[in-house]
Amino acid sequence: MASVQDISVSASINLLSALAFLLAFAFLRIQPFNDRVYFPKWYLEGIRASPRRSGPSVRKFVNLDFRTYIKFWNWMPAALRMPEPELIDHAGLDSAVYIRIYLLGLKIFVPIAILAFAILVPVNWTGKTLDDIKDLTYSDIDKLSISNVPSGSKRFWAHIVMAYVFTFWTCYVLYKEYKIISTKRLHFLASANRRPDQYTVLVRNVPPDPDESVSEHVEHFFCVNHPEHYLTHQIVYDANKLAKLVEKKKSLYNWYTYYQTRYERNLKNRPQTKTGFWGLWGKTVDAINYYSEEIEKTSEEEAAEREKVMSDPKSIMPAAFVSFKSRWGAAVCAQTQQTSNPTLWLTEWAPEPRDVYWDNLAIPFVELNVRRLLMTVALFFLTFFFMLPIAFVQSLASIDGIEKVLPFLKPLIEAKVIKSIIQGFLPGIALKIFLILLPTILMTMSKIEGFISLSYLDRKSASKYHLFLLVNVFFGSIITGAAFQQLHKFANQAPSEIPKTVGVAIPMKATFFITYIMVDGWAGIAAEILRLVPLIMFHLKNTFLVKTEQDREQAMDPGSINFSVSEPRIQLYFLLGLVYAPVTPILLPFIIIFFTFSFVVFRHQIINVYDQKYESGAKFWPDVHRRVIIGLIISQVLLMGSLSTRDAPKATPLILVLPVLTIWFHQICKGRFESAFVKFPLQDAMVKDTLERATEPKLNLKVYLQDAYVHPVFKGIEFERPPVIDEEENNPLVSTKRNSCRGSKTGSIGSPDSVVCITE
Amino acid sequence: MASVQDISVSASINLLSALAFLLAFAFLRIQPFNDRVYFPKWYLEGIRASPRRSGPSVRKFVNLDFRTYIKFWNWMPAALRMPEPELIDHAGLDSAVYIRIYLLGLKIFVPIAILAFAILVPVNWTGKTLDDIKDLTYSDIDKLSISNVPSGSKRFWAHIVMAYVFTFWTCYVLYKEYKIISTKRLHFLASANRRPDQYTVLVRNVPPDPDESVSEHVEHFFCVNHPEHYLTHQIVYDANKLAKLVEKKKSLYNWYTYYQTRYERNLKNRPQTKTGFWGLWGKTVDAINYYSEEIEKTSEEEAAEREKVMSDPKSIMPAAFVSFKSRWGAAVCAQTQQTSNPTLWLTEWAPEPRDVYWDNLAIPFVELNVRRLLMTVALFFLTFFFMLPIAFVQSLASIDGIEKVLPFLKPLIEAKVIKSIIQGFLPGIALKIFLILLPTILMTMSKIEGFISLSYLDRKSASKYHLFLLVNVFFGSIITGAAFQQLHKFANQAPSEIPKTVGVAIPMKATFFITYIMVDGWAGIAAEILRLVPLIMFHLKNTFLVKTEQDREQAMDPGSINFSVSEPRIQLYFLLGLVYAPVTPILLPFIIIFFTFSFVVFRHQIINVYDQKYESGAKFWPDVHRRVIIGLIISQVLLMGSLSTRDAPKATPLILVLPVLTIWFHQICKGRFESAFVKFPLQDAMVKDTLERATEPKLNLKVYLQDAYVHPVFKGIEFERPPVIDEEENNPLVSTKRNSCRGSKTGSIGSPDSVVCITE
Repeated sequence: MASVQDISVSASINLLSALAFLLAFAFLRIQPFNDRVYFPKWYLEGIRASPRRSGPSVRKFVNLDFRTYIKFWNWMPAALRMPEPELIDHAGLDSAVYIRIYLLGLKIFVPIAILAFAILVPVNWTGKTLDDIKDLTYSDIDKLSISNVPSGSKRFWAHIVMAYVFTFWTCYVLYKEYKIISTKRLHFLASANRRPDQYTVLVRNVPPDPDESVSEHVEHFFCVNHPEHYLTHQIVYDANKLAKLVEKKKSLYNWYTYYQTRYERNLKNRPQTKTGFWGLWGKTVDAINYYSEEIEKTSEEEAAEREKVMSDPKSIMPAAFVSFKSRWGAAVCAQTQQTSNPTLWLTEWAPEPRDVYWDNLAIPFVELNVRRLLMTVALFFLTFFFMLPIAFVQSLASIDGIEKVLPFLKPLIEAKVIKSIIQGFLPGIALKIFLILLPTILMTMSKIEGFISLSYLDRKSASKYHLFLLVNVFFGSIITGAAFQQLHKFANQAPSEIPKTVGVAIPMKATFFITYIMVDGWAGIAAEILRLVPLIMFHLKNTFLVKTEQDREQAMDPGSINFSVSEPRIQLYFLLGLVYAPVTPILLPFIIIFFTFSFVVFRHQIINVYDQKYESGAKFWPDVHRRVIIGLIISQVLLMGSLSTRDAPKATPLILVLPVLTIWFHQICKGRFESAFVKFPLQDAMVKDTLERATEPKLNLKVYLQDAYVHPVFKGIEFERPPVIDEEENNPLVSTKRNSCRGSKTGSIGSPDSVVCITE
Repeated sequence: MASVQDISVSASINLLSALAFLLAFAFLRIQPFNDRVYFPKWYLEGIRASPRRSGPSVRKFVNLDFRTYIKFWNWMPAALRMPEPELIDHAGLDSAVYIRIYLLGLKIFVPIAILAFAILVPVNWTGKTLDDIKDLTYSDIDKLSISNVPSGSKRFWAHIVMAYVFTFWTCYVLYKEYKIISTKRLHFLASANRRPDQYTVLVRNVPPDPDESVSEHVEHFFCVNHPEHYLTHQIVYDANKLAKLVEKKKSLYNWYTYYQTRYERNLKNRPQTKTGFWGLWGKTVDAINYYSEEIEKTSEEEAAEREKVMSDPKSIMPAAFVSFKSRWGAAVCAQTQQTSNPTLWLTEWAPEPRDVYWDNLAIPFVELNVRRLLMTVALFFLTFFFMLPIAFVQSLASIDGIEKVLPFLKPLIEAKVIKSIIQGFLPGIALKIFLILLPTILMTMSKIEGFISLSYLDRKSASKYHLFLLVNVFFGSIITGAAFQQLHKFANQAPSEIPKTVGVAIPMKATFFITYIMVDGWAGIAAEILRLVPLIMFHLKNTFLVKTEQDREQAMDPGSINFSVSEPRIQLYFLLGLVYAPVTPILLPFIIIFFTFSFVVFRHQIINVYDQKYESGAKFWPDVHRRVIIGLIISQVLLMGSLSTRDAPKATPLILVLPVLTIWFHQICKGRFESAFVKFPLQDAMVKDTLERATEPKLNLKVYLQDAYVHPVFKGIEFERPPVIDEEENNPLVSTKRNSCRGSKTGSIGSPDSVVCITE
């Protein structure tokens, strides 16, 4: 059991490492040669130009203006200065709402912490149970927790009342926030510029027709069933193989450039490589010749594949992007059922073109069901049997465990400082290492499940990761100390016993979670702002691959918020805060520091660094809301269990009311707000349509939409279009500049051929 | 513990009583003066006329043709003879699908019973555990059950394999049936005649507007947001008070007629009544004068109220029935969200006019939420605390219980026949009495929850009743013998212990459930066909109230299938069958007899008697399907518990696969079929619209829809219409005969003023 001293050692280590990260960041960010690592967003916006273009040569690389070193904290106020509407314009609604999750944390926990310190801490401190026990398993921190209140005491009324206050406050803040976010979303959608997805519906599971091609079939179906609204459609090609070839060619080209650069620097020594895997074995050949031949070969393959995809009817998927003449028509088609067989002609809002996950567009209904079943079972096993190794490492990470397994280390470990380090540090690190592998697995599982947009994949992976963190990090950390097989234990224990077992263990685990917050939270956020991996990658690329300014643009990796990983982690802090607020309020300041720090850092990141891969209009908020509610309910149930083992008077029925009310509150919020994130109201569509008809009566929508949903590998290449039925539309076209610009900007992600266009 | 002898006594009693009911029915139904009780459906169809109109006077009342007495069974083949398409035409899809639930039972259980008797009964019988025990708590029936197989025997493989076979067979039949029913529903909807609800959407929560009336506001909103489709609308008046007055007047008129008739029969004695409650106390007055005055008074009140409702803007509810020019327009509006605030302008398909539950049309969103919360809590308490009295009565109903409470009855009870009667009969009867009160309470709860159509109310009440039967009849009967407080026990027992406890008790309760099936099932169905209450009521009315042929029409009460009560009861038999199939297969024949008998009886009833109050197009089938799935899962879990206490090899993981697969199967069915019961596909709407435009180009839809959704109390009365915006529609009207006829037929339910119109 860690003492206050352990905690302070751990806190200072973590604070120092966080500070070191921050200082490193403050130093690195003002060096001009790192400019594209720490301010890529501004380059993409076209506002910032490379500092190397002018000025004396040393200053291009190193900042010699020492005044700027003194003001190294100034990124923090700068990050907070941009007002929110501008932030939404600059970084998109997704990012702006994402950092509001941290704000939500502050709004919930600051008042709760103040109340808890004003009321619960004195109540616990004067309980004085632990003074009598003199047991080594309790530390000073426990004196501030509920453990210090004697069994059956009337002091528990304070905890019950506080549980009510915390619940109502959390619900109030959640409600207000849901309202704000849904208003922001509706406003964002209403004020958004014209975008192809506003007019477009994704149709899947087009039934095969013996007499017609997919394209004709789609066209006829929608001409008949949406006669006044159907405009055009774009069929979907199975270009997965082609995309792989394009990817391969890009990689070969990188190697070619690398060897070319090496050769240019040292003309005497012509570089060589081996033909085998990663150039590690095989026949030794001249590298430049080898790669130029390989590129040639791949180009031919690519051309052949491209030809095949566009001519072979088998590579046309039974899916299409159908566009309508108005937003109203698209809103109607997306929300209604088309045929009596609900597994055919499935319609849903098309994601943004850059949000589409092309690989999953053509999975038939039954296969989708089988995949989901398999992934559900897989998730179950992953969640419940992944924790065995964690428990093993954690049992090693205790002093006793290490001494048992490696007895010769005993004298070293017994040294006081090292003991503190081990106890404060190792359990958190062990968890952390396990968790690094996980998101990729979960994302792959979501992809197998067949979701069709990147944003949806992110949200689904986040759900899985949340479940995982809940079971393994939260419950796993609480229970494993006592028993390895949590699931088995839960199955063989009465439902009323589980909250008791967990509830009793919770105050004792406070120190562990405080450590966890510092290691995972504080240090993690400080590492986030340093961007070590992109920093190294950029400089490697810059040295070996960059030849032109355009190459440098490519080498720059702004990255984006990894929602599927970060959001469930934040939720863990919400859960910890809510669970510990009535039990061990001393944990709350650590969480508040985490939320504050994260808020500032992520605000800085979305302003200066990240470039979102898609814009879903904060569609993830219902998930965020739901998970906070889940945390709230868990906290109530655990408090109930905890109090019922302490003979608190009438606690169980009194607290049982809270989860019922919380679930009901969730239902109300769902009914009140969720549809703003799922459906698109006809009134809003009609308003925008009417406005557009008035302001741009000559707009040729068909041309605007024509290439919007072309697979990125086809971008910039002319290919056969389906014949147009509606002949009157084939008039001389008014092609706007914005149009062509948007098209190519969309294509710039993942496609090496296209050029970024900033002349909007 | 009841022995085989007890069962046979009980079986013979129940068989005899069922036979007595059937003989009584066979006798009564061929008496002409009962014709309107046993064949009201045909009168309503206009095919059968009163037999009293012609022929010799005795024959009008008593059937003297003795040949018909000999063929008294002939109603059974007659009931089976009508082919299903004709049945759907005659009685509606709801009724035709309802009796298919019994057919589903037969399809599931006949093959299962054959398999179980071929395989499981020999396996159990040769187990021979009970031969050695010689314990009085086991009867011969138990020898055929799983109890007779020794612990840890390899024979349990037979039960596990059979559990798989039963599950797959049940799922297969369910899938086939779901497919058949959804096809039937779609075909029914596609071939349905023009009905107002096809064009109409119910709009609720119209926001208040300071400048416009509700009617204007609705009109403007839909003119703007559905400009090409909006046709007309009908506002909803708060006519609940008026409806009560109409009801009161009808009742007063009945009393007036009653006294008038008495006076006419005995002119000397002018009848008198008392003015107090039900004529039991108060001042004695002349009855005929009193009631004619009262009628006068109520008529005046009614006229005043009618005036008030139509002129006072406060009696206009914020709801409206909005009709569209095409089915396509209505389908679009019903399935989409109208505004960004999802609690305003809520649209849904309008129920049929006769299906509307007018009282609930104007409940605001928040109040609705509060009502649902309260009713959920109430249902919880009703479900879990209603069982205490049942348990008490059942503990009395055992021989030992009675002897303890009433020791002087001991010699009487010990007599063998009486003992059998008590043991076989009483527990079932005690349950039955409790259950009679319940449906009304549950229906009231559903009404408070605010559902807006009778069909929805029925379905929701059925859900509640199903939960109640599951907890109290099924689990209650199994557990209470051991402990009163099932809920408390479940909360304090491990989740894996519950199936074990219940699973062990199940084979021992087989005899109880066999008795229950006979008392509740067999005798209940026989009583159903006799229609004792309507028989008595009709003859009472006929004697005292009927003066004209039209009065007799009114006195006739065809009734309808009480879905909210019958369906959950059937589900109990499904559950019993599925649970006992692998454990005590001897129960299956009793269930099969129940399903066969019910099928024939209800087919007879829907052909000859029942007149459905509404037609929902078998919208209840997803509920039926879901509940059978729930039963299947319960049976699997209980079998798992049962086998794990008997040391069956590897039973738990093997059977654990079954519920996972079953839930997955349910998901597939839901995705595949459910939308056919919830949404209306645009393609089908478009087909019908196109057809209609071709066949009836001159149809004036506005006139057709004008009065469709008027509250029944306003039927037949001219009242102010909202001004028509679309002037071109006001052309000379082509009013079809069918049109006016349908309108008045719709109104005939619940409205005494209108006349049934048969001239279609």
